[in-house]
Amino acid sequence: MENTDKRRELQVSAIENGTVIDHIPAKSVFQVVKILGLEDSTEQILIGTNLESKKYGRKGIIKLANRFFEHDEINKIALAAPSATLIVIRDYQIVEKTKVDIPDQVVRFVRCVNPNCITNYEKIATKFIVIDKEEIRLECHYCEKVTDKTNMVFI
Amino acid sequence: MENTDKRRELQVSAIENGTVIDHIPAKSVFQVVKILGLEDSTEQILIGTNLESKKYGRKGIIKLANRFFEHDEINKIALAAPSATLIVIRDYQIVEKTKVDIPDQVVRFVRCVNPNCITNYEKIATKFIVIDKEEIRLECHYCEKVTDKTNMVFI
Repeated sequence: MENTDKRRELQVSAIENGTVIDHIPAKSVFQVVKILGLEDSTEQILIGTNLESKKYGRKGIIKLANRFFEHDEINKIALAAPSATLIVIRDYQIVEKTKVDIPDQVVRFVRCVNPNCITNYEKIATKFIVIDKEEIRLECHYCEKVTDKTNMVFI
Repeated sequence: MENTDKRRELQVSAIENGTVIDHIPAKSVFQVVKILGLEDSTEQILIGTNLESKKYGRKGIIKLANRFFEHDEINKIALAAPSATLIVIRDYQIVEKTKVDIPDQVVRFVRCVNPNCITNYEKIATKFIVIDKEEIRLECHYCEKVTDKTNMVFI
């Protein structure tokens, strides 16, 4: 019996220093992988998806050794995974735990859905006002067209 | 001390039924994710990359609940990750452990590098003879051009 019980749990090393992104909607896990450029990382990464979560249905989790996030990257994570929690680990201890927050404005890293928008043919950074933080709807500061979750492209 | 020790190990549920792909070269982990279509899976998936491995340098591992592979998919895994081991789990027990094996022929799932090859403009399945299993070099049965690891595209 003891052997069987042991097999049901696999030991995975916890990270010494880094960030855990928890409560990612399962369908957004690989989008977060992509926008954070994790495919090319040489640091340890653990990813789980379609895990059971009472609160969020099926969730994903990403554990990143030696990676810490600042404003722009946190905003990107928030747009792709508004329910995400960021847990900062130092020396194996949780030193910070925060829910990501959708910003009021999104500058630079999302493409405007309108092909005729000035930001798509001149070298001007995109800029949006977030008009709906639940459904994630971004109104372009320049052309006023609305980019939403279904057509959001990160640049 | 006990608390500190506990924090160093995180318990992750083992899979009841499914397949573990171990010993994936770290740089090929997300390629394997892509060729197996895991981005769209609704089953539990655990992925680790850049993990320490005495034998293989930095390795990756992918654990897939309720997923079992057959010939074509195993051949795809072999081409992307020739060092991979497939471990089949049933009722929490390892029931099969095999090293993937580069096939002698590759039919259908790799694109020929030659844009003028008949397989690229007519509806003909690609077919290659594997002329180098170490470096992974595939000679096209139709145009004899060689497709290798650096320009291999899975279709």
